[in-house]
Amino acid sequence: MGKKQYRNWQAKLHEVIYGADTPAGKLFDVVLLIVIIASIVLVMLESVRSIDEKYHDFLNISEWIITVLFTIEYILRIISVKKPLKYITSFYGIVDLLSTLPKYISLIFPGTHALVALRALRLLRVFRILKLARFLGASIHLGTAIKASRAKIFVFLFAVIIAATIFGTIMYLVEGEASGFDNIPKSIYWSIVTLTTVGFGDIAPVTPLGQFIASLIMILGYGIIAVPTGIVSAEYTRKVNMDNQLAANAAANAAHETATVNEVDLNTKSCRNCTADNHKDKAEFCYKCGHYLPSKR
Amino acid sequence: MGKKQYRNWQAKLHEVIYGADTPAGKLFDVVLLIVIIASIVLVMLESVRSIDEKYHDFLNISEWIITVLFTIEYILRIISVKKPLKYITSFYGIVDLLSTLPKYISLIFPGTHALVALRALRLLRVFRILKLARFLGASIHLGTAIKASRAKIFVFLFAVIIAATIFGTIMYLVEGEASGFDNIPKSIYWSIVTLTTVGFGDIAPVTPLGQFIASLIMILGYGIIAVPTGIVSAEYTRKVNMDNQLAANAAANAAHETATVNEVDLNTKSCRNCTADNHKDKAEFCYKCGHYLPSKR
Amino acid sequence: MGKKQYRNWQAKLHEVIYGADTPAGKLFDVVLLIVIIASIVLVMLESVRSIDEKYHDFLNISEWIITVLFTIEYILRIISVKKPLKYITSFYGIVDLLSTLPKYISLIFPGTHALVALRALRLLRVFRILKLARFLGASIHLGTAIKASRAKIFVFLFAVIIAATIFGTIMYLVEGEASGFDNIPKSIYWSIVTLTTVGFGDIAPVTPLGQFIASLIMILGYGIIAVPTGIVSAEYTRKVNMDNQLAANAAANAAHETATVNEVDLNTKSCRNCTADNHKDKAEFCYKCGHYLPSKR
Amino acid sequence: MGKKQYRNWQAKLHEVIYGADTPAGKLFDVVLLIVIIASIVLVMLESVRSIDEKYHDFLNISEWIITVLFTIEYILRIISVKKPLKYITSFYGIVDLLSTLPKYISLIFPGTHALVALRALRLLRVFRILKLARFLGASIHLGTAIKASRAKIFVFLFAVIIAATIFGTIMYLVEGEASGFDNIPKSIYWSIVTLTTVGFGDIAPVTPLGQFIASLIMILGYGIIAVPTGIVSAEYTRKVNMDNQLAANAAANAAHETATVNEVDLNTKSCRNCTADNHKDKAEFCYKCGHYLPSKR
Repeated sequence: MGKKQYRNWQAKLHEVIYGADTPAGKLFDVVLLIVIIASIVLVMLESVRSIDEKYHDFLNISEWIITVLFTIEYILRIISVKKPLKYITSFYGIVDLLSTLPKYISLIFPGTHALVALRALRLLRVFRILKLARFLGASIHLGTAIKASRAKIFVFLFAVIIAATIFGTIMYLVEGEASGFDNIPKSIYWSIVTLTTVGFGDIAPVTPLGQFIASLIMILGYGIIAVPTGIVSAEYTRKVNMDNQLAANAAANAAHETATVNEVDLNTKSCRNCTADNHKDKAEFCYKCGHYLPSKR
Repeated sequence: MGKKQYRNWQAKLHEVIYGADTPAGKLFDVVLLIVIIASIVLVMLESVRSIDEKYHDFLNISEWIITVLFTIEYILRIISVKKPLKYITSFYGIVDLLSTLPKYISLIFPGTHALVALRALRLLRVFRILKLARFLGASIHLGTAIKASRAKIFVFLFAVIIAATIFGTIMYLVEGEASGFDNIPKSIYWSIVTLTTVGFGDIAPVTPLGQFIASLIMILGYGIIAVPTGIVSAEYTRKVNMDNQLAANAAANAAHETATVNEVDLNTKSCRNCTADNHKDKAEFCYKCGHYLPSKR
Repeated sequence: MGKKQYRNWQAKLHEVIYGADTPAGKLFDVVLLIVIIASIVLVMLESVRSIDEKYHDFLNISEWIITVLFTIEYILRIISVKKPLKYITSFYGIVDLLSTLPKYISLIFPGTHALVALRALRLLRVFRILKLARFLGASIHLGTAIKASRAKIFVFLFAVIIAATIFGTIMYLVEGEASGFDNIPKSIYWSIVTLTTVGFGDIAPVTPLGQFIASLIMILGYGIIAVPTGIVSAEYTRKVNMDNQLAANAAANAAHETATVNEVDLNTKSCRNCTADNHKDKAEFCYKCGHYLPSKR
Repeated sequence: MGKKQYRNWQAKLHEVIYGADTPAGKLFDVVLLIVIIASIVLVMLESVRSIDEKYHDFLNISEWIITVLFTIEYILRIISVKKPLKYITSFYGIVDLLSTLPKYISLIFPGTHALVALRALRLLRVFRILKLARFLGASIHLGTAIKASRAKIFVFLFAVIIAATIFGTIMYLVEGEASGFDNIPKSIYWSIVTLTTVGFGDIAPVTPLGQFIASLIMILGYGIIAVPTGIVSAEYTRKVNMDNQLAANAAANAAHETATVNEVDLNTKSCRNCTADNHKDKAEFCYKCGHYLPSKR
């Protein structure tokens, strides 16, 4: 619908559902969060047979209630937004749909009921909701650091996958089906399990040569785990330092002094005329009022 | 009991039991530490059937001795402190109670005897006691670094848990009960086992798709372990640098020069003509007025 | 063949096959990359029995096509390069040969067919090809950091291997064949599995003493994983800082100001009276001559 | 034997055996290193039954040769050193003895033959020998960094062990013998396996509560692995920076300029009179000859 027909109540609704600056918006987010978590707990309990047998009806009914709530929310989201299609085709739009649809479909095809579990994906909304909370302050650094080292981490993961492919193929040739390395994809799965130091042990080399190669893979994996860590921690350190810098400047401008971690002007002269202090080391005149600064030295 | 009735002998007792500045206090802490460790070793040995059968009486008797000692300590702590209730309801108060009670209860309900093991929690006192030792110097940085990155690590763990929930649900749908993913909670347990690169292997994916998703989880887990490490090491580096800085400034103010971490000109000559100081190390003439700088060296 | 006979068409061919500056060269690299990946996917699918049975003919034919393509490439590489022997004996030369030969040999000895999988090694070319892509920018730091800490990481891995040997021998003596520690090499394999925190569990200590030593190994491995990480991240931080510095200097010289990583006064006012610049951000008067500084803002 | 009787040939011998500055000393070290590695390879091969059965005589004879060589070395070490007792009682002295004795004892008690494997401990000599090699340069930083964070890492490992004890006890109470948590020591072994993210899977929780607690332990272990890494990498960064600083100052004093990583004087003026450059940013006169520096700005 065009801008014209976009009515006031829609704007209000949008503010509540998508925004979080108004009390109503905040409330909506919190309630939504609780309902999402409740719905996931429900799905979990339902998946535990013993519990499901005991409380099947209760679980089923509350499931329906939540499904209806989600459906209403879904509809409200569609009618309140300016470009409904954009929302419907967006990642969150699809997730929201997937978290309601299966329940309805399960009326016709009971088999599909398990798909209700897909609403666990709604948990991702938690991030968007918590963005509003004080955690942002905590995670923004993190985000920038990770973003900054994204490309590097990509290269790294890329190398890991290639290594896994090559090692997997070699192990397939060396160990063969006898030891559970049935085919190359499975061997690659194994070498990822090994490179990442997870080591399930569902598949393990038995031939001496295989164990030797496995040892190499493990030591390699043990060694290269240092790489992403090094990257992130270096990037993060850089970010932190930059921030210190910015903070320092801010403080400087605000509190009218430039005492920072990196401060190099350490003299303690203060102007007799305007009491401004923290002058440059070689200042002869007050940077504030131009009054002469007698050297205390 | 009110401040009025709080008598002198209580103060003394308190000083010995809770303090560690007096020789008596130190001694008490050390003895306590030894008794705690002894009691835990006892519980361990007792839990080993073969040993328990051989030395049951000895173990039982020494258990009683320690229980009595702990009981006395517990009572002394109560009567020596000003606000007994505060201690009793405190974490350490409850732990201390839990480390004595089970033994007495086991007289009536033998089944509960195993709970004696709960006194392992008393080990936590070790931290409070060692706080007094030279390790503080070692762990204070650590503490501050961890505290500084607490919020960030929380966000991180939070993300890990959400990822585990989503992956767990997906794996439950993909693998199902056939491969041991009996229900969603168990699948979540599995994805935590995998994300953290622990990989017990008690449950492992068997379907190709499941193994593919598992590979993604592992690589993800392998990659994100870099995040907390990066955080802590960056925070820690910052702490260390700040310290260096403070030390430097102190030196600077004391020695009347601007030697900072970044300072490279460290000589203390000052021009007789214009009092300008902070000359280059090799300066022979004032960079300000061109006056000759007599070498103080 | 000597430089004399080296003809023009060869130069062209060489430019296309080995170079990547010309459109043709780029195209060749991209096509090659796709064919390599396709060939590996083929080998993977072939190794999965169920798939192989269904599409055996299709897989076999496409295998032959790729093998022929690789053979042609191999020949072209030989005739286009100035020193064919140097290429043939080079690592990539051998890999390229290994990726074609097995298929032909399998005509005579069908058993050797599996060796076709060796062409997975061709994946390594990906690195050379991607060198041309934007990832270089991302991985160059990485490369230098790793190179810088190469020697250190070598020492580290060396220590890990020695530790593994000693622990392996001890575990062999402690656990013996009963628990699967059949011989020393296998025990060493186990201790590498443990030190690197992979922990397959295909072999695990059962005697209390063995489990105690295993605990020591694990804690050691858990502790020392910090070492390579520390190295890389420190080296990497250093690299990053150096870069910042260089960038800063460049900027400084270029933009005629001394904005450095540590610079806090960033304004670019310069005094009309004495041309002194680098004033404090809030300066209203020249710190050098006291002349009024008109605000450029 | 006192200093008096300490004869010249002993000094020579000592120089060869313990020293490495003379060609003879270097040669001795290298030969020793080879023999040690050979002896360990022998022990390994011997431990592999199939190989032992084939080449038993050859292995046995070469074992005897090496044992005799080691015995001679041991005797030479004793007679060449000034304080024989000090060597005999030293760690290396005991190791050297343990690497020869078992073979002789096995003549009387064949059972003890396996103890020959103890000579793997001789590998530790490799460190002392390689100290002489170029690796020192690589590992000295490492050493200092680790030493600097020794206390901190100790505190950390200490915390890990306490955590393992408490979690182990709790898991023993929760899971009990049914799931393989037979006794507390074994549970502690399990929680170390889990905390260190090794995860053999030889023991794994089966009860929901147990799996929940296990999840907590894993996430904790996953989180705290950041701590030692953070420490080492921070300490290491500090070491590196200090070095840069020292190097910079050295360079400054030596090469008569102060261009360092931390350089803040970035102007490019050079004195017309004496061509000295790299003046302070605000220099008006050459710090070398006092000649006036015209401002290029």
